[in-house]
Parts: sequence; structure tokens; C-alpha cells
Amino acid sequence: MIYLDNSATTKPDKAVLDSFHQVATQYFGNPSSIHGLGMDSERLLRKAREKASALLEVDSPEIIFTSGGTEGNNIALKGIALAHQNRGKHIITTSVEHPSVMEACEGLERLGFEVTYLPVDQEGRVSVDDIKFAITYETILVSVMHVNNEIGTIQPISEIGQLLSNYPKIFYHVDNVQGFAKVPLNIREANIDLCTISGHKIHGLKGTGLLYVKTGVKLFSLAHGGGQEANLRSGTENVPGIVGMVKAMRLAKERQAEINNLAELKQYVMDELSKMRHIELNTPKNGSAPHIVHFSAPGLKPEVVIHALEERNIFISTKSACSSKSADESQVLVSCGRSYEIASSGLRVSMSYETTKAEIDVFLKELTKVLDKLSKVMR
Amino acid sequence: MIYLDNSATTKPDKAVLDSFHQVATQYFGNPSSIHGLGMDSERLLRKAREKASALLEVDSPEIIFTSGGTEGNNIALKGIALAHQNRGKHIITTSVEHPSVMEACEGLERLGFEVTYLPVDQEGRVSVDDIKFAITYETILVSVMHVNNEIGTIQPISEIGQLLSNYPKIFYHVDNVQGFAKVPLNIREANIDLCTISGHKIHGLKGTGLLYVKTGVKLFSLAHGGGQEANLRSGTENVPGIVGMVKAMRLAKERQAEINNLAELKQYVMDELSKMRHIELNTPKNGSAPHIVHFSAPGLKPEVVIHALEERNIFISTKSACSSKSADESQVLVSCGRSYEIASSGLRVSMSYETTKAEIDVFLKELTKVLDKLSKVMR
Ligand SMILES: Cc1ncc(COP(=O)(O)O)c(C=O)c1O
Ligand SMILES: Cc1ncc(COP(=O)(O)O)c(C=O)c1O
Repeated sequence: MIYLDNSATTKPDKAVLDSFHQVATQYFGNPSSIHGLGMDSERLLRKAREKASALLEVDSPEIIFTSGGTEGNNIALKGIALAHQNRGKHIITTSVEHPSVMEACEGLERLGFEVTYLPVDQEGRVSVDDIKFAITYETILVSVMHVNNEIGTIQPISEIGQLLSNYPKIFYHVDNVQGFAKVPLNIREANIDLCTISGHKIHGLKGTGLLYVKTGVKLFSLAHGGGQEANLRSGTENVPGIVGMVKAMRLAKERQAEINNLAELKQYVMDELSKMRHIELNTPKNGSAPHIVHFSAPGLKPEVVIHALEERNIFISTKSACSSKSADESQVLVSCGRSYEIASSGLRVSMSYETTKAEIDVFLKELTKVLDKLSKVMR
Repeated sequence: MIYLDNSATTKPDKAVLDSFHQVATQYFGNPSSIHGLGMDSERLLRKAREKASALLEVDSPEIIFTSGGTEGNNIALKGIALAHQNRGKHIITTSVEHPSVMEACEGLERLGFEVTYLPVDQEGRVSVDDIKFAITYETILVSVMHVNNEIGTIQPISEIGQLLSNYPKIFYHVDNVQGFAKVPLNIREANIDLCTISGHKIHGLKGTGLLYVKTGVKLFSLAHGGGQEANLRSGTENVPGIVGMVKAMRLAKERQAEINNLAELKQYVMDELSKMRHIELNTPKNGSAPHIVHFSAPGLKPEVVIHALEERNIFISTKSACSSKSADESQVLVSCGRSYEIASSGLRVSMSYETTKAEIDVFLKELTKVLDKLSKVMR
């Protein structure tokens, strides 16, 4: 199997699964229990939090473990909105965010908030000036993703952070689900208040994630209860999942050393694809993540290409998994100014550190065959 | 090890762990992906949902998988409140709910909602008449737990449901985290709109849970995004955890056949404890769950008793895990009208279907020793 849909989800690392299993069987106590079994779990949890914070170069109490990227994004957006609405009800984001940000914003609009969805350029990038001009006295939050999940565009996160350092009352949230351990980002230096990571995108387990919440940032909790996770996310902690999540983070960080290989592989895919007839690249040449290549095969239905490749045991995707069952046009590509033809025929290859050159060569060869065959039939 | 803290959390069943592992390794695709790996996961998810609905005797689309009981309770309360606030902003609950209901209500008060916390009688039971009299034209939600997590009291869930059938605009939420597969409850017959279950309390995995949401009930989503879980709880589904959750539900339901054994064991504990000097029972003789026995040892600090038992490899708890690190008084016992002395010296034994008579005998013997020894020192 050649799996090239790593931006949808990754295969859990064996080491992560082993940790999960060990903790689930040997440390099943509730960290809130005051007896030894509880204390053992609590200790594991504390260690996991310390390791995660060290990996992110932040403080340990700033780590909030969640059930995934969607929850992290929702806690950040709704938590800020509901806690700070007395100060203002305006939020700024972009038109290419993941649905978990986009729809959360739309949900907040239904609660009376005003949201500015900034346009992006042809490469899917928001302009720092646009953000500056969108800020009003009512603005309480700016939310911008680090790496776009469809086409891989890297947003100017640090520059936006610099801009926002002039507006100390505006909170800054970054969805780093696709960027973590792929594209360097220093949370503190970029002046970020809230930053989302998801476990299952980095060979961790589904149902795990992390939200960085800067010390002092107040949120309305979406999960009130026993006061776990600094009172921001109550509920009995999924200690086995958390330990697995942190292990996945560590492994991903270690493999970040191989980032150049990944970037070279991506360049190779881009070069080869650009030689093919019938194909238009959507991923920007510069300023895009090392693992995502997005292209369109105009005139062909993406599902047909995907299924043809699948018969050859190769797995790629169209748009992002989370929205691939809804409308047939990619909102991201529409926002980038692409035509309907391009926006409705997108295909995404997303690699991981596991992906090899040999796999990519097979993929390219089979893709060529599939496109030739389909083109004869369909065009 | 004699583990008698099953209301805090349970040891995951081996069969649950095996299912989890199998799904996590062999079916790691994202259910939203349109290729075969995604479809395999989607199929597993659908089957899990069907099985869960069959076990609960409800319809499959009424099952919303969550990350646990706290999330379920929060989705129910905040989801109803935020979606139906135009109709009214009044919520009715009791003064003995789990913190995930209590604190969620307090959170909603900060957002402008009005909450009535009804008193309970000496046994911790709310009166159906009190609920009736508390209803106003503004009431949108009644939330009552099925089984109290500290003292095991069973609330008159069906009677309240019958009352509320006269108020079709009021939603009815039941926290059934402690009651599931222990105390029979038919969701439909009891006229329940929303019902919470948690995985790790029934030998499932932490980070898993389920919320029943009756067809047609509208909620404001706390997790907007890709539209998973009927648009009520977006986020890549934790398919391995979900499959494990449903397996745990099935196993728990099967063992419900042994409910009489558990009830007898509890009766035995109650009888033996009531013979001991220095002990006051808090769990009601009638109308309490078959797995929880709560008692006070006035004059003794519960943590001292717990640690003394722990040295003998026996694990019990004080109050509920979720609140055991905060104030030293049990709010539940205070609500039942107990004195400070009783309310601050509570101990909870919570059994599971795994608990044996032999274990209980050891516990009783060791408790007697511990109490005798401590009484000599402390009183
Ligand atoms: C950029 C981005 N943000 C958020 C998410 C949501 O993460 P999760 O699937 O863990 O809920 C995803 C995953 O699809 C994503 O790609
Ligand atoms: C009655 C009750 N409701 C809700 C919860 C919260 O469940 P979870 O620990 O899965 O978040 C608990 C667990 O402590 C409980 O006992």
C-alpha cells in the first residue's frame, strides 16, 4: 500500500500504540483519585505535560490536552469569544481556514459576533496589511492557520504576530494542525496566544490533541466540570492517549531533522507533475509545506482518479477529508481565484516522513497511466 | 489488588483493548476519506453506531460519540441553552449533580441564564413536585442525573419524564454515567431528550463516551467543523475508541444479568458496615444503585483511612474523583442535610461486576482493623 493521504490522517506509530497499551493496562487509575493508582496516573500526566511543553518551548501549565484539532480550534475561538464579548464582538480570520475554524466562526455569528473572512492571494496567502486594516476597536481575536490543509500554503504567522504585538488586547490563535513538526514555528517568538495541534495527523492516535494557551489568557470553558486541564477542559483525562500524543510529538520532532528530504521529495513530485499534460499545480512553488502537493486534473472527476489509483493500491485524496463529502468545489481554490473547472477537480498528495522516493515513483507512473486512460475516455 | 473505586474509573476490559488495537492498526483511515481505507473506517463506525443504538433501544442517528461524560453533559446543557435561548433562559437541575453539570450551569449563569438548583431530601433525592413548581414559561431544560456518583441515589427519572411530557417545549437531559448497565432505564419510555454515558466507567477507554440526542432536538454545536456526528460534534472520529466503547457497552449490558449478585454484594457491605462502630451509612437503603456504598467515619480524615487501606492494597475513595481535590466537605452530603462532621469524613466503595465476595470480605476485615487503630489514635 502506498498511502499518500497523510493530511487526512496518519497510521499510528507502533511506539505510540505500545505506550497507549501500557498506560491503559498498567496505569488505569483516575488522575483525580487521591490513592496511589490515581497518583501514578497523575505523575504520568504531569510528565507528559512537561515533555510536551519542552517540545513546544513553552511552560507546562500552558498545555491543554484535548480530543483533537477540531476541539482545540473550537475551544480557542468560542472560549475567547464567550469570555471576552464584553470587550468586543469582532473576529478576524481568513477565507481558507479549516471547517473547524470556519464553521465555528459562523456559529459565533449566529450568537451575535461579527466575523471578517479575509481574502487570500492566488497562492492562498493572507496579507498582513489586510489584517491590519480589518482591525477595529471591537476586535478581540485573530485566527489564522499555519499551513493550509488543502494546498499547503504557509501563512505569515510570525509577521501577523509582530503586527498583533501592537494590539495587546487582541488574542492570536494559530491552527497548527498541518504545520507541527513540518514547518518550524516558535510559539513564543511568533507572539501566539493559542495554538492547536492534533495527534492523529502526526502518527498519534485519533481522539488526541493539544491546545497551547498562553499564561493569563482567559477562556470560557466549553467543558466545565472537575476542573482538569487548568479548568479549561474538564473531564477524566485520557492519560493513555495523552502519553501517546506526546510520544508522537517527540517522534515527529525528531524526524523534523529529515525535513529537507521531505521537501526534496515534494519538489520532485511538483517537478514531475508540472511536466504532465492535463495537470495544473495548485500548491505554491514557494512558501508551502514540505508534505502537501495539490493539483487539478481539469475535466476529470477527482473521485474517478482516486478510485483508479486505489485499484493500484495507492491512496490519495481530493480536498480535505473533512469537507470531501460536501460540495464538489474546493472553497480554498475558489478563494485563490481558481475557475470552477480547477476548483472542482482537485487532488491532494500528502506525504509523511515514512514516504519513500520509490513510492513516489510508483505513484507518478501509475498516475500517468490513469490520466492517459481516463483522458481518452472522458475528454 | 482490591480495586473498589470503580465509580472514579474502571480497568479497561481486555476485549476492549484488543478491539482498540485492531482498529487502530488495521483501520486507520479517516472515515471522511472517500477511498477504500476511509470507507472501511466509515463502515466500522456505522456498525458501532448501530450496535450502540440497538443496546440503548434508540435509533442509530440519535447516537453522538463523544470524548466522555463531561463532554456529553456540556454538549447537552450548553448546546440546548445556546440554541434555544430565544425561547427562554431558565434551566432546572438539582443540587447534587456531577460538577460537569453543576459547573456548566454556573458557566451558563455567567452568560445570562438563570438556573434553579433544586434541593434534595435526606437520601439525596429530588422531588418531582419541586420540579413541577420550578417550571416557568422561561424554562427550556431540566437536567437530572440518574444515579448519584457519590452516594448512589437513584433519581425518579421516569416520573420526571412523565411530568415533562406535559411540557413538550422543555428538553430533558439525564446524566446516566453512573447508571448505565447498572440501573435499568429505558430512554424512550422515560421521555428523555438527551442522555450521557461515559466509556471509562464501564471498563471502556478513557476519552470515549456517548450522548443520546433524540431525533429533532436542536443543539448549538460546541465542536463545529467537518460535520461529523450529525453536525453536533465535528472532528475526525476516534474510530478505535468508539469501537471499544461499544464493545464495553455490550459487555456491560451482558453482565447486567448479574445485577442481582452485585445488589446482594452491596447489601452485604451495607449490612456489615452498619454493624461497625464509628460508621454512618450515607447510601440510602432503598432506591440506590447496586455498586456504590458511601459511608462516613466521623472524626477521621478520609485520606488517612484511604491511605491506610492502600497499604493493604485496597483502593477506595472519598467523594467523587472529580472533586476530591477541592473542598473537604462533600456538597452532595451537605445537600442531604448532613453535618459538617459527616460531610467531611465520607468514604466511597464502588464495585464493578468484577468485584467478588472474597474481596469484599478482605476489605471489611481490613477496614475494621484500620478504623480500630485510627480510632485509638485520633479520638
Ligand atoms: C488545518 C486543520 N485544522 C484542523 C483540523 C481538525 O483536526 P481533527 O481532525 O483532529 O479534529 C484538521 C484536520 O482535518 C486540519 O487539517
Ligand atoms: C455522574 C457523573 N457524570 C459525569 C461524569 C464525567 O464523566 P467523564 O469522567 O467521562 O468526563 C462522571 C465521572 O466522574 C460522573 O460520575
